[in-house]
Amino acid sequence: MADKQALEQFFRDEFPQANFSIEAVGDRHAQIRKQIGFEHLRPGGTVSGPLLMEVADAALYVAILGEIGLVAMAVTPNLNINFLSKPAADRDILANCSLLKVGKTQIVGEVTIYSEGKTEPVVHAVATYAIPLSEGR
Amino acid sequence: MADKQALEQFFRDEFPQANFSIEAVGDRHAQIRKQIGFEHLRPGGTVSGPLLMEVADAALYVAILGEIGLVAMAVTPNLNINFLSKPAADRDILANCSLLKVGKTQIVGEVTIYSEGKTEPVVHAVATYAIPLSEGR
Amino acid sequence: MADKQALEQFFRDEFPQANFSIEAVGDRHAQIRKQIGFEHLRPGGTVSGPLLMEVADAALYVAILGEIGLVAMAVTPNLNINFLSKPAADRDILANCSLLKVGKTQIVGEVTIYSEGKTEPVVHAVATYAIPLSEGR
Amino acid sequence: MADKQALEQFFRDEFPQANFSIEAVGDRHAQIRKQIGFEHLRPGGTVSGPLLMEVADAALYVAILGEIGLVAMAVTPNLNINFLSKPAADRDILANCSLLKVGKTQIVGEVTIYSEGKTEPVVHAVATYAIPLSEGR
Repeated sequence: MADKQALEQFFRDEFPQANFSIEAVGDRHAQIRKQIGFEHLRPGGTVSGPLLMEVADAALYVAILGEIGLVAMAVTPNLNINFLSKPAADRDILANCSLLKVGKTQIVGEVTIYSEGKTEPVVHAVATYAIPLSEGR
Repeated sequence: MADKQALEQFFRDEFPQANFSIEAVGDRHAQIRKQIGFEHLRPGGTVSGPLLMEVADAALYVAILGEIGLVAMAVTPNLNINFLSKPAADRDILANCSLLKVGKTQIVGEVTIYSEGKTEPVVHAVATYAIPLSEGR
Repeated sequence: MADKQALEQFFRDEFPQANFSIEAVGDRHAQIRKQIGFEHLRPGGTVSGPLLMEVADAALYVAILGEIGLVAMAVTPNLNINFLSKPAADRDILANCSLLKVGKTQIVGEVTIYSEGKTEPVVHAVATYAIPLSEGR
Repeated sequence: MADKQALEQFFRDEFPQANFSIEAVGDRHAQIRKQIGFEHLRPGGTVSGPLLMEVADAALYVAILGEIGLVAMAVTPNLNINFLSKPAADRDILANCSLLKVGKTQIVGEVTIYSEGKTEPVVHAVATYAIPLSEGR
């Protein structure tokens, strides 16, 4: 397990470009926040799809590392993502992740992304990760 | 909208082989129950994967018809299903469905399946349905 | 590896209810055929969605066992399925499977299903399987 | 329909940050190339997952616009992506897209991504797009 502070340090060191904040982590859950800037917008004032995928991926990564610790992780997931509604261009994005299964060799989690203050979800994603066995879990 | 009684009648008439019961429906949710019999088991005492897919599909169908009424529905969904743990051979299966989005032309829902009395989910699925426009919604 | 004859015996013994024929298997591919009967049809003269899922699942299973031999397999895949067009009610169904990756612990395959003699695909599916390590591959 | 030149102009105008080249487009297919730079790499010398998702998304977008013309497109797809092997850090990435279905209201396509000169696929993705009806197709 890794706490919020250790995770923030980890992402600052290893993924300096990720640039999100961890709102909460623990107990098979995580919430991260991403500030939306001009560079994330697409024609029509919507947030780019790949940016939303990146946020979904990051929220899963935080929840998993919060659960199993700062081990090297398999970078070979399956990700299934549904774009549900248009995100607001002028609000932060919040991603809530819950792990559905934490097995010895496989972890499955789901993420729901919202524009802050809105109740309609923007994105829902489910991902499956394989844990390398050398980690000896 | 369609209530539990109308839906049970509909499935008895249209899908006599479906053979599940509706425990609850309404407010973008549904719960259905499927009794597991010998014909649903696979070597090793597990419930067959296709049967679990059928139950996931049925739970989504009930939740959607409960929401939009007994209209003809597009039979062209995307379904993404994760098998999370081995179901019990000797327990009923309960499937809980929540609709994530109910749009004019698209509905997205998720389903979690459990063996009755267990807390570990057996299956998680997400599906996307297109609503035919002739339905005038 | 397992040849067509060994696989047909395996499915007759272990899954007597499966009831499909193996047209071809080997070299990371498989083709299976399923005869459509009255019991597989749904209102409107279409083939039931769960039956199509079952055929997709079976084609993957045949391709994988054809590649790695008749070992016990992880029953915990991820399956993502798209229903593309309405299958013919009066034609056999052919499912073509190709394995995209055959790794030590993970296999990924895709399946395309057709009504015999038609060129428009009915179903496309992608699945990920975990191989149990006790198999010592 | 839109040809390669019109598409390149479109992406330069509308998505100046996309920064890929169109190798081929037409007949329900597209191939795009993405040069990998230092900013796309992750610890361990691998290409970032979100970058690969962005390339998959772009290849689909090119194939679809090549087919239906430069219309406004629904930004609400379902995307299912499998990461199959580690991409090379020092090679361009090539993404090949084929459309599986081009319907009036729905398009389904698949993409396979390779590191240039390698035969093992890096990523496989399938996506479903809804076409807005106001486009009058």
